[in-house]
Amino acid sequence: MKTSTKIKSTPSHAILLISCPDQKGITASVTNFVFENNGNIVHADQHIDEQSNTFFMRIEWSLKGFKLEQQAIGKHFEQIASRFKMKWQLSFSQDSCRMAVFVSKRLHCLYDLLIRHRSGQFACDIPLIISNHPDGQAVAKEFGIEYALFPITPQNKRRQEVKQIELLQKKRIGLIVLARYHQILSAPFIKAFSTNQIINIHHSFLPAFVGANPYLQAYQKGVKIIGATSHYVTEELDQGPIIEQDTVRISHRDSLSDLIRKGEDLEKIVLSRAVRWHLQKKILCYANKTVVFD
Amino acid sequence: MKTSTKIKSTPSHAILLISCPDQKGITASVTNFVFENNGNIVHADQHIDEQSNTFFMRIEWSLKGFKLEQQAIGKHFEQIASRFKMKWQLSFSQDSCRMAVFVSKRLHCLYDLLIRHRSGQFACDIPLIISNHPDGQAVAKEFGIEYALFPITPQNKRRQEVKQIELLQKKRIGLIVLARYHQILSAPFIKAFSTNQIINIHHSFLPAFVGANPYLQAYQKGVKIIGATSHYVTEELDQGPIIEQDTVRISHRDSLSDLIRKGEDLEKIVLSRAVRWHLQKKILCYANKTVVFD
Amino acid sequence: MKTSTKIKSTPSHAILLISCPDQKGITASVTNFVFENNGNIVHADQHIDEQSNTFFMRIEWSLKGFKLEQQAIGKHFEQIASRFKMKWQLSFSQDSCRMAVFVSKRLHCLYDLLIRHRSGQFACDIPLIISNHPDGQAVAKEFGIEYALFPITPQNKRRQEVKQIELLQKKRIGLIVLARYHQILSAPFIKAFSTNQIINIHHSFLPAFVGANPYLQAYQKGVKIIGATSHYVTEELDQGPIIEQDTVRISHRDSLSDLIRKGEDLEKIVLSRAVRWHLQKKILCYANKTVVFD
Amino acid sequence: MKTSTKIKSTPSHAILLISCPDQKGITASVTNFVFENNGNIVHADQHIDEQSNTFFMRIEWSLKGFKLEQQAIGKHFEQIASRFKMKWQLSFSQDSCRMAVFVSKRLHCLYDLLIRHRSGQFACDIPLIISNHPDGQAVAKEFGIEYALFPITPQNKRRQEVKQIELLQKKRIGLIVLARYHQILSAPFIKAFSTNQIINIHHSFLPAFVGANPYLQAYQKGVKIIGATSHYVTEELDQGPIIEQDTVRISHRDSLSDLIRKGEDLEKIVLSRAVRWHLQKKILCYANKTVVFD
Repeated sequence: MKTSTKIKSTPSHAILLISCPDQKGITASVTNFVFENNGNIVHADQHIDEQSNTFFMRIEWSLKGFKLEQQAIGKHFEQIASRFKMKWQLSFSQDSCRMAVFVSKRLHCLYDLLIRHRSGQFACDIPLIISNHPDGQAVAKEFGIEYALFPITPQNKRRQEVKQIELLQKKRIGLIVLARYHQILSAPFIKAFSTNQIINIHHSFLPAFVGANPYLQAYQKGVKIIGATSHYVTEELDQGPIIEQDTVRISHRDSLSDLIRKGEDLEKIVLSRAVRWHLQKKILCYANKTVVFD
Repeated sequence: MKTSTKIKSTPSHAILLISCPDQKGITASVTNFVFENNGNIVHADQHIDEQSNTFFMRIEWSLKGFKLEQQAIGKHFEQIASRFKMKWQLSFSQDSCRMAVFVSKRLHCLYDLLIRHRSGQFACDIPLIISNHPDGQAVAKEFGIEYALFPITPQNKRRQEVKQIELLQKKRIGLIVLARYHQILSAPFIKAFSTNQIINIHHSFLPAFVGANPYLQAYQKGVKIIGATSHYVTEELDQGPIIEQDTVRISHRDSLSDLIRKGEDLEKIVLSRAVRWHLQKKILCYANKTVVFD
Repeated sequence: MKTSTKIKSTPSHAILLISCPDQKGITASVTNFVFENNGNIVHADQHIDEQSNTFFMRIEWSLKGFKLEQQAIGKHFEQIASRFKMKWQLSFSQDSCRMAVFVSKRLHCLYDLLIRHRSGQFACDIPLIISNHPDGQAVAKEFGIEYALFPITPQNKRRQEVKQIELLQKKRIGLIVLARYHQILSAPFIKAFSTNQIINIHHSFLPAFVGANPYLQAYQKGVKIIGATSHYVTEELDQGPIIEQDTVRISHRDSLSDLIRKGEDLEKIVLSRAVRWHLQKKILCYANKTVVFD
Repeated sequence: MKTSTKIKSTPSHAILLISCPDQKGITASVTNFVFENNGNIVHADQHIDEQSNTFFMRIEWSLKGFKLEQQAIGKHFEQIASRFKMKWQLSFSQDSCRMAVFVSKRLHCLYDLLIRHRSGQFACDIPLIISNHPDGQAVAKEFGIEYALFPITPQNKRRQEVKQIELLQKKRIGLIVLARYHQILSAPFIKAFSTNQIINIHHSFLPAFVGANPYLQAYQKGVKIIGATSHYVTEELDQGPIIEQDTVRISHRDSLSDLIRKGEDLEKIVLSRAVRWHLQKKILCYANKTVVFD
């Protein structure tokens, strides 16, 4: 599991995420751009959404021997991009993303993220944990991470969010992970991180059981399978683009606490997949859905 | 797969389904009743719902050497039942259930049920297929089953349903299976088969995507997993007790027709499990949920 | 599910399957070839096996307006192919593959294939069913397909296989599907269809439970999950390249006949996926493994 | 997740695990024994293995108001047990099991067990971690658990195992969990904990890929699904009774390190289920298989 370490030390890769109206010649133009500048393609994946006639591409190439300087790549690529009316995003494997985890009282997802990070699964730094409760303080200390406590009441919520945003910006946080954070973020907060920078884990198989207490809802409904959903956060509660989901079988023998135990195992896996894909620049959003080039 | 054949020919088993308020001594009383009459328990399963303090039991015993005649068992058991305020249902493995299949244009579930029946998976007779379209006529003929065509319009719907009920009663149908029947049954129809005698397959993971076009709904929502749900039909659309569910993974690479293809494989399996469990008297309903003693 | 029909009637697509040692410029050269001849790429997928440094690609483009005649495409592409030392295979979506199904006594996979074919899931013709037992004769008749009976004994096996090969060649069969055919094909037979033209369904999660009676082996071993595996047939029994696998949970409550029932549902799905992918030219083999561009 | 806490503090339950040749009257006798002594059955589950005609039962009842003292229950039950030639095991929910974890260099299962224990999922104490490497020392310290380092060489192996056994006995350990311990235990060690007191996690879907490097074996074989297996340890390597298994889908896109990452998520879940069921006395062994009354 030396992935992240290796990525950081090597001459690095360039990653392009592209979307545009489909037409002839896109793939040829992009791959020629890489080839003519002496790049070696490591991964390439593309997708055409037939309903909207939209073309999506993720291309990753080694910069070893590449003719263009990193800072010049974008400028040169812009010529192709403008011809095809592309939206595009260029990043480099050694770019260091900084991630903050929000948590309330249930700590299983927080633990899971920190242990995966320690084992090298996430190519990022985690300099900050934010919470409305003190429960996670000991865990943060064990992992040597700053724990910022912001108790929330209906009265102070807006003010606390303003302070949270200040702290997040000061720490140059690029990705916020809501690891069972039991507060609904306000529209201004979400706008401050509006380029799909907030990932949430919802403990149901969305769109079933939106909102509070999904395990209790599932138990009372008598479903035979429960699920978990990771998604980008948008202003409409639990309605953002779905990144990943998974399910597990239950039966009448399972009590509500069994549902919670089984579901929390799902939450950890589903959330960690979404975070890893985001950090690896494998996710493209469109029409409130995602393309995941896994 | 001689199961059904074997069941029909042997001296048979008795099956008791029981539910009552939980208290001490229920299991002992029921198992003593079987033992003292020289029965040999083949299966016994019980469950206590802790929220409602309700006891559920399914007990199946061999009638070989049993001291009571079949028709006398109920009368004798009534003494125990009244002591514990039981709801109970007694049946015998050689009881012949008669099943009707309702279908519209998509025939995959109809085919699947008929082939499973032919291979001996269902201990029942299937003397009747009812449809609002002629599409399944050839299949019915291949399997030698009467195909009753009832075209439905908003104007004739109630009259056609009255005729359907007459035909079903004339054929002594005990179980109706809606195998992708694209008509909503009216309340009077459902009341005519009100003791959980109608099983439906819904092509989504309920309660997500209730109503029409669930695959299209799922496609547009961008979920990463789709499902199918079999449930008893009650007057509230797609809200009856869930018997079985299953799910399958999809991705952005799957078009709407891929979703349909993958989903139809789920539908067949989920519906066939529900039908088999119903015929084996393995399902108990309470609080709009099911206990399935599989 | 008009997929296959649509494919047959439209001006059609070209599909290239490519494998070669990885090096710079492959993707650019191939996509340029399509673009410069005015082709529109519909699907493109590539993969690099890092251990063997092998490049794999599947590219599918619309021939509408394509500058080269179908019969000239290969000749022109050969220039690129030889430069990169490619193995390649060119096909067209309207190419009609002819498939034969081999079956013995258990008919669930045969039924499943024929119903899927009838519903348009498979873009091929099925002119022939071959069996060593008469059990499937009625099914063949229902679907209007020739049923060739070749009873097999240790004494006549080689002679019967020679006759089978003659019949298959006479019928111009390009794909043989062993749908629970309980005879081991001899090496000469396999050599006669040696370019991955035989697909088998094995009723276990290979490499567990090779050989006869895998469900009994699984039952006696006490596994908690059973599986099914579809693979290309090679001379070593049950050791050919795996195309697809799936699994289902079992418990101590499942008898051997429950395992068989659950497993047969897997077999149908796993076999049908393999057949569909093969017909859509989505499978590449190397190192006794497969790349499936699904 | 107060389960374990609740169990420890309440007047407690009694749990009987029973196996014997099947005959009439077993269930009636056992449930009468509980009822006549004023016990309230909380869970009861039974199973008959038809091949060996063996009866299995797990019965759990509340001791609140029970007429017999805890220490007298066994003596009184012996009368029933001897009549039916039962093997039986009586335990109490407040019995404190003491568990030791063995680990080598990969720490994901160790972490997972300790966090679940901390959250109350396991009703046991964990006073000891044993390892042949120092890697887990910091984790042990974080959780306040003694870490005993026993470096193993071919020369010192037997002597070190003797010391390990001494330490385990001194600490009164009742359950040993091999959480990716990369040493094969010798026969004398296993004999010292011979009543199914050692649980191992094997990182493959047994019986596929026995022995070393199962992920590499799976990668080279080209399987489309990988698995994990928890089992009791017997003298034959990786051949003890299987407690639990689970699987996850992979594809050609997954590198060996992807297999490891996906597989390790399975390992944690599969191992934790086995440990929890063992601690809850839900597992019965026979014929090198398990009955799990989950």
